[in-house]
Formats: sequence, structure tokens, C-alpha cells
Amino acid sequence: MAKAKTSLTVTEHPSILPVAGVQWGVSYAGIKASAVDADNTLQSETPKNDLALMALSAGTVLSGVFTRNAFSAAPVKIACQRMLAIANSTHQNPIYLLINSGNANAGTGAAGYAAAEESCQSLAAVAACDAAQVLPFSTGVIGQLLPVKCINIAAPAVWSQLSEDGWSQAASAIMTTDTVPKGFSRTLIIDDITITLSGICKGAGMIRPDMATMLAYVATDAAIAQADLDHLLQNAVQCSFNRITVDGDTSTNDACMLAATAVSSVTLSPAHKDWPIFQSALNDLFIDLSTSIIRDAEGATKFITINVNQGLDVEECLQVAYTVAESPLVKTAFFASDANWGRILAAVGRSGLVDLDVELVEIYLDDHLICDQGGTAKSYSEEAAMAIMAQTDITITINLQRGDIHQRVWTSDLSLDYVRINADYRT
Amino acid sequence: MAKAKTSLTVTEHPSILPVAGVQWGVSYAGIKASAVDADNTLQSETPKNDLALMALSAGTVLSGVFTRNAFSAAPVKIACQRMLAIANSTHQNPIYLLINSGNANAGTGAAGYAAAEESCQSLAAVAACDAAQVLPFSTGVIGQLLPVKCINIAAPAVWSQLSEDGWSQAASAIMTTDTVPKGFSRTLIIDDITITLSGICKGAGMIRPDMATMLAYVATDAAIAQADLDHLLQNAVQCSFNRITVDGDTSTNDACMLAATAVSSVTLSPAHKDWPIFQSALNDLFIDLSTSIIRDAEGATKFITINVNQGLDVEECLQVAYTVAESPLVKTAFFASDANWGRILAAVGRSGLVDLDVELVEIYLDDHLICDQGGTAKSYSEEAAMAIMAQTDITITINLQRGDIHQRVWTSDLSLDYVRINADYRT
Repeated sequence: MAKAKTSLTVTEHPSILPVAGVQWGVSYAGIKASAVDADNTLQSETPKNDLALMALSAGTVLSGVFTRNAFSAAPVKIACQRMLAIANSTHQNPIYLLINSGNANAGTGAAGYAAAEESCQSLAAVAACDAAQVLPFSTGVIGQLLPVKCINIAAPAVWSQLSEDGWSQAASAIMTTDTVPKGFSRTLIIDDITITLSGICKGAGMIRPDMATMLAYVATDAAIAQADLDHLLQNAVQCSFNRITVDGDTSTNDACMLAATAVSSVTLSPAHKDWPIFQSALNDLFIDLSTSIIRDAEGATKFITINVNQGLDVEECLQVAYTVAESPLVKTAFFASDANWGRILAAVGRSGLVDLDVELVEIYLDDHLICDQGGTAKSYSEEAAMAIMAQTDITITINLQRGDIHQRVWTSDLSLDYVRINADYRT
Repeated sequence: MAKAKTSLTVTEHPSILPVAGVQWGVSYAGIKASAVDADNTLQSETPKNDLALMALSAGTVLSGVFTRNAFSAAPVKIACQRMLAIANSTHQNPIYLLINSGNANAGTGAAGYAAAEESCQSLAAVAACDAAQVLPFSTGVIGQLLPVKCINIAAPAVWSQLSEDGWSQAASAIMTTDTVPKGFSRTLIIDDITITLSGICKGAGMIRPDMATMLAYVATDAAIAQADLDHLLQNAVQCSFNRITVDGDTSTNDACMLAATAVSSVTLSPAHKDWPIFQSALNDLFIDLSTSIIRDAEGATKFITINVNQGLDVEECLQVAYTVAESPLVKTAFFASDANWGRILAAVGRSGLVDLDVELVEIYLDDHLICDQGGTAKSYSEEAAMAIMAQTDITITINLQRGDIHQRVWTSDLSLDYVRINADYRT
């Protein structure tokens, strides 16, 4: 995954680089097990951390994008509201992002909203700050009330653990069905000063982000104005988290946060000569994070890149790409390593494009042309196609030959383990 | 499944009633195995019939609806063209529907078109008719050329088998991944004469019909004018085949045919007093046929009815219903018999309805209210919900409380066997 690029140093997980102005603390709160008994003591013997706290130093500018699912979770609503207030403030105060796994606090009505609010207040009491400086995030089972007592009890512990070196532990603490923690860093030298970009994310199922993925936290020590940071985040998300799908199921809790702590002496804006390099480094980091979700997708055995080229507009390219990416029949064929490309063709055909001339459509597996003129390409070789299907990483390229727009989407296959994981998740 | 209704006699498969004017023949042609060697002799020892011929007597009026998949198969294109010519004719000649399983002849370009045409010609030679009277239909693997030689050889055999009692054998011959043949009949007494309605269909995967399902053939011995028959078919399909989904994958070969042989002395039209009864019987037969596909869906362990009520229009009701019906997470929860209703809520939330007030949305499992006011309903009982989820037949009802339109869709769960079947299908 490491890519050598001009002026960029890529550092892979698990050595996520610290970012000046960012601290992480983690703790076990027993949220999934609701393992707090009447005496307020924890029951579990070998706990997995399920609470993380991201502390951003005063002066940090924060940007965020959130799910468009109409049933957005209580913490998403509260975090959104506070983001607006913070963006309009002078950024004088530290900001705390309080994140729990094991419970999404979604579909929990007024009681869920109160629980999210209470969790912020308990952290604020420990941090001696206003609850308005605390943004809540939750991920896990939908429809069960957040056991906020667990968080109240763990708040002092997570606060006491705050450290600049806490990124990796945080990447683990926010995991649900993820099998590996996900984090990446990049450094750039700008104005002779080393700038760091680090990010972590979680997600493996219920992945079809619409504005953002389940949860992602990215920070840099550069100083960037609110409007510029918002713009950077929107762009980065469009080519990364908004281009992945595991199962088409947009989560109720998607959130992606980008912080610029301004602790380094570098100030960046579109007027800076190195702005395009910084933007490109940020986009690459976002692509690393989002594709790491696909590589860790529930039950996934394949990493599939879908290129749709020569479309009329972005919408129709994405329509074709997502129809192919989310077709259960295409996904099971990839799981079987079976070059059953007729299923790709059928998915393109049903994607709803107006006046699609199927005679012009070309379909490639990697560089092997398998379909043109409405049928099997002359170049098609079953042996070559099966060899490509046996790979872990496979690229499908679909040339529509009716425009000059292209889009790229990443997805995984549909395996027996996907069904097993999702049939077992709540029990 | 038998429903007693005024003036209707319901007869269940396998005793599908003959319809005067309709004959079926079946034969083994070795299409899937391409089991014809250089000497043109068949290789298989225990063949499953894979070729069916429906013969409609002269005077029959025929209506049809076909897939909207842009990559529609060669036989679909030919059948469509011939339907237009037949509809414009005086219906003086018999019509032959030649149907093979084991190969879809889709994604096969010009060669596939020629093969479909050749199969019609070989039947026409045996039947001593014009090839324009023969409509081809294919179902099976996409992207492999139809081994037309197999059909040419089997044409005399399928012709010699023609019989009014061939419906059940035909229902078996058109099966692919289906585990049971599907057929139903109804009789009505109109003008003191018994009218028969019989139909068969096939389908288990790649099911999200758009105009029709994989393949369905329905006939009556009443006399009905072309325009009225077309209208009847459109209506029947809208409440049946166009309301089912297994995997969201619209096939390249969907076709649904309705024939009125006029052999009985009853002539029906909208002016006839019993027209509504006939229409209702036809719709019920179509619902029996289409829901039998869901009951036999690949790997299915559950039969799920989704009602969306109180929507603004048909489109938004279907948007919600299909988002829930095709959510892999909802489907795996049903497979697990797990009342993880948060996944239903998340699917409703991402279905894209404009200005949806989630506080108003009510979700029921059967008659048990599980979600209202954005969270768990006060009436919710985990025990009751789990008892419902343990059933084979489950109804989800979603009340949007923003209009007075309702729609109903049927679907299946997503099981380990669904993945196994579709990972093994081609090999």
C-alpha cells in the first residue's frame, strides 16, 4: 500500500504518527456487554477497550461530514449542532470527541438523545469544560439505548489516558466487526517544516457512506481556515469514503472528522504554492483509510476496483459502478473466483442508463477485454479470465463510449462469512 | 395457499388444469451440458428435460411483457418483434413458444441472435409453419452461446410430445436453480360456462423483475381482444411479478406471456358484468405464481411481505419497500431469525425520501409495533419479536404517516445457501 510520491513520506499502520495538538485516550467501559452491575463495578475479565477520547488543543479548526440517513443517530445530531457552534466560534477552547463502540445509540428516540447528552456532561465534568465542547460519536448495534452509566464511570479513566501516542489504541477501541485497526499517516515538508497528517477509521459492514463512512478521524498540525478545511474535507470524502460500498447499507452513524490543530507554524490556504500537494496528500490518506475498510469488509476475500469510463456525467458513471458493486450475483461470482462476466453485463444492463447502446459497451477484467459488441470479445480467454479472478485484487473496467467522465468505486465480494457475521452480529 | 373465494375454484400444483387450445411438449436437448458430440448423439444417461414447446391454437390472442434490462437477450428481442407482428395480424395461425433452460443466450451478440433465429427455423420446419410464428425464450447462464444444434436435434421430439396435459412437465423443463416446479390454476363459471386459467413460471435468483419475471406462461380459454388482454397483463404484472425481489438483479431474459385461446365460447371484455371477477382471479393467479418464486428463492428460509402504507405516492412506497427488501443486513437478520429491527429502521432512513419525519414512522413485525417516535415502541417485547422472527412467513409493515398510498412487496432472506448456490452456479 505504500506509494512513493514526490515530497511525501508514507508511513503505514500500526506506527501512526502523532500530530501536535492531538491527544487520544482509551478505556474499557463495558458498553456492549452493559457489564455494569448494581454496584457500578465492571464484570468483564479481559476487556476490549470500547471508549476513545480525541482531545484537540485550543485553536484547532474542525470540519465534519455526517450521514444523510434520515434516521441519523442521537450522537450524530448533537455532534452536528455543536460543529456549527464551534465553526462560528473563535476556536479558543479545546474540543473533545468522545467515541464509543458497542452501541450506535440510533433509533433510540428522546431517551437516546438524553443519554448522548449525559455522556458529554460526564466528560465535561472531568475535563472542567463546557459540554458544548464535547462531541459524541457512537457505533455498534442500532436500536438499543446507550448504557450511559458505563461511559460516566469510564470518563475519568479515558481522560487520564490522554497521550499524543494514543492513535493506534484509539484505532482499536473504535472497532466493531473490524478485524484490524485502520490508520495511516503522511508527512510533508512545507515551508521547510514537517507537517503531519494522520487518520484512523473503523468500518466493515453497513458500508455505503453518504457524506462519510462509519467513523473516521483525521488531523493535521497545519493551520487551515474553517472554509478551506471544509472544502478540503468535502473533496477528500468525494474521492474516498463516498466511493466505497460493502453492502449498500448507509449507516445511521456515519461521521468523518478533519482537524487542523495549527500547532505547527505552517499556515495553509489555496493561495499557498504547496496547497495542491497538501490536498493530494490528504486525498491519498483518505483513499488509504477508506479502501482499508473494503479490505477488511465483513467476510471479504476480494478487493474489487470498479472503473466506469466514458460516461455522460458523474451520476450515470456512479449508477453503473454501484449497480455492479452491489449486485449479489456479481459479488458471489467474485467470491467463487468464477469469471461469470454475464452477471456484470446483466448489472450494467439494469443500471437504468437512458439510451445505452450495449453494442458500444466494453468490459475488462484487469487488462483483459472480455465483452464488446454485445457479446464475448474475440480476445476472451477463459483461462486468462479465471487467472485474474483467482487474484485477491481485481479491477473491473467498464467503457460506456458515450462521454468523457470517469468514476472509480471500491467494493468487496459477498462470501459465506459475510452472511455468518451478519447473522451472528447481535447474538 | 388455497383461498376460497366467491365463484372461484382454486386448484394447486401439481394438478395444473389443461386449457383448451393450449398444448405443451417437453424434451431433453442437452443444452446445459452441450452434450451433443460430433456424431450428434446425446451423452447424458439421466437427462432432465430442458426444452419446452407451448403450442397455441389458431385464433389465440397473445400478450407479453419483457425485461427492461438494456442487455436483453437475443430471444427476448426476437420474441418482442414477433409479438408486434402477431398482435397486428388477424390471429389466423397457431403460435409456438419454444423455451429452453440451461442457457440464457444473453450477452452473445450477433451469433446469439442467429442461434435463436435458427432454433425457430428448425421448429418451424417440423411444424410446417413460418418461423415468424415461433417465439424463442431462453433461461440459464448468461454470456455463453446457445448450442442451437441441441435444439435442432430435439425439435421433432418436443413436437411429438405435444399434449393438453403437458403443463406440469413444462413447469419442470423450464427450471434452472428452482427446486420445485411452479404452476397454478383457477376456474370460473361465466355465462354458465367453466373458464380455466392456468399458469407456470420459473425463477429463484436474479429476481427483480422489471415488467415481468424470468419466465411465466399463463393461458385462458376465454376469448379476449388484444387491447383488453394487454391491459389485463399489465395490471396483473404490476401487482405480482413487478413486486417481488430476491437479490435486486433484474434478469436479461425476463418474459411473461398471457394467452387467450378463445376455444371456449365465452368472450370477455370490460363491458362484461363478470370482468372484475375474471380480472381479480387472474391477478390472484399471478400473485400465486410470483410469490411461489419467492418461496423457492435461492437459499431462502423466510417468506417476507413488506407493506409500506401512508406514503405520498407509489414511487416512494416502492423506494422504501425495495430498500428494506434488498438490504443485505435486513436479509441476514431474517436468516438469523434475529429481531434486529434497527437494520429495518436504517434501511428506511437511507431510502432517500425527501423530508421524511422519522418521528412519525411506525414499524411493525406482523401485528407487533416495534418502532415509533424515532425509537423503540413502548409496546416492544423482545420475546414477542423473536417469536415472530422464528416464523417462516413474516410481514413487515411500515407506516410513513404522510399520505394515503400503500404498496406491497415480497422478498426472501439472505442465507448461507444463497451464497453457496451462487458461488457454485456456473461450475
